[in-house]
Amino acid sequence: MKKLILITNDDGVSAQGINVLAELMTQLGEVIVVAPDSARSGAACAITSTQAITLRRRIDMEYNRLQVFECSGSPVDCVKLALEQVCPRQPDLLVSGINHGDNASCSIHYSGTMGAVIEGCMKGIPSIGYSLRTLKHRCDFTPYADEILRIASFVLEKGLQQDVCLNVNFPEVEKLAGMRVSRMGRGRWVQEWISANNPRGMNAFWLTGRFLNLEPHNEDTDYWALDHGYGAITPIKLDMTAYEVIHSLFPLTSHS
Amino acid sequence: MKKLILITNDDGVSAQGINVLAELMTQLGEVIVVAPDSARSGAACAITSTQAITLRRRIDMEYNRLQVFECSGSPVDCVKLALEQVCPRQPDLLVSGINHGDNASCSIHYSGTMGAVIEGCMKGIPSIGYSLRTLKHRCDFTPYADEILRIASFVLEKGLQQDVCLNVNFPEVEKLAGMRVSRMGRGRWVQEWISANNPRGMNAFWLTGRFLNLEPHNEDTDYWALDHGYGAITPIKLDMTAYEVIHSLFPLTSHS
Repeated sequence: MKKLILITNDDGVSAQGINVLAELMTQLGEVIVVAPDSARSGAACAITSTQAITLRRRIDMEYNRLQVFECSGSPVDCVKLALEQVCPRQPDLLVSGINHGDNASCSIHYSGTMGAVIEGCMKGIPSIGYSLRTLKHRCDFTPYADEILRIASFVLEKGLQQDVCLNVNFPEVEKLAGMRVSRMGRGRWVQEWISANNPRGMNAFWLTGRFLNLEPHNEDTDYWALDHGYGAITPIKLDMTAYEVIHSLFPLTSHS
Repeated sequence: MKKLILITNDDGVSAQGINVLAELMTQLGEVIVVAPDSARSGAACAITSTQAITLRRRIDMEYNRLQVFECSGSPVDCVKLALEQVCPRQPDLLVSGINHGDNASCSIHYSGTMGAVIEGCMKGIPSIGYSLRTLKHRCDFTPYADEILRIASFVLEKGLQQDVCLNVNFPEVEKLAGMRVSRMGRGRWVQEWISANNPRGMNAFWLTGRFLNLEPHNEDTDYWALDHGYGAITPIKLDMTAYEVIHSLFPLTSHS
């Protein structure tokens, strides 16, 4: 049976990145796209609990054996809906992206691209997120096509360990320096707000910000790789327990 | 100088849980509440990038030395806005909740309560999320008041390790069996959609679901603690790297 590949993103079904990704994935199997109807940048693992979600087939976007659906929910909603309401069987692979903007370091926590990947992983599907460090809506994705396919093929063939998914980030370059397996670098966003002009005199602000790399010299981080022209492959796990500090919290245990 | 405590949640500024929490925290320091203007359940670490965020003081909700603000954004937006636009200095503690509904096991990934805690942690503030396993909007929080204060005092006094925060969950009981330090249990949500009646004949669905505990017999998990009448204190870390699988990905490295 042909491999079944589920594709989603957080930039919306019309974004260039997801359309490039879908075209690449048709080389590896049967492809179903279920993506948000418009941009959901920064949606993280958000789910929609306060309204009903609509699902609509986009026959106008389909070709070969590609099926395309758009959904009014978040990237995680897209994955949940795809698995229960669209896919004829459990997908062999979930890929999310290609995001316009990197999701390295702490940005993974905010990322809708990676939210969908974490959801796929939670459901037992080998899952990969692809992101490109760019500010553009139209990009040249050709420098990354071979690596995208190579990583997806590797995962289709060998699978991933239980509860582990991949976060793959590319720098915007004409030719990659190579690919590195990395860890999440430490960092945070700073100077995050600018005042919004507002005719009613309310306090209003736009979210913006500057990324502060807290370990710019550590070569094993995803951020270092991107800064130096490499693609970064970072394995991410669902279990966020800080095992190493459990003992220090024992004074808080009690029995009635 | 009095300790400064920042409070937020994902159920909105009017929820009972955050008002109980604010009242408790006034025993430990000066309190500033910056919370969403309405419910943001399931907001995870989502940020708002497509519209300006409004911030409004709620003098009607203030008493003693408590300050209250409501914000049109997500729980993470609330924390970001509080730190740059509201707080006179870096808070000594961030507490989020008390959430109406537990955030144990995989639910942490979807939780706006914990999204705010992760954001506080990222900004270097000792941060704690409190959640109650309940389906009610009006609850009796008295069985948990002493533990909430004890944990907050412990963290105010000793701090938390860098990049580690706490996820505290309580079961709905008249008297806690005690408190346990636990890890995130493995689990996932299943049977997540029901069809929505829709007058226009569109495909529409409501998110619902049933939690599937994948390790119901493991006594060290947060879920086991809740199922057996205990409160669960789970240390959570920002770094999601799956270090243990890095070596298995080395075949994917390359140099041009």
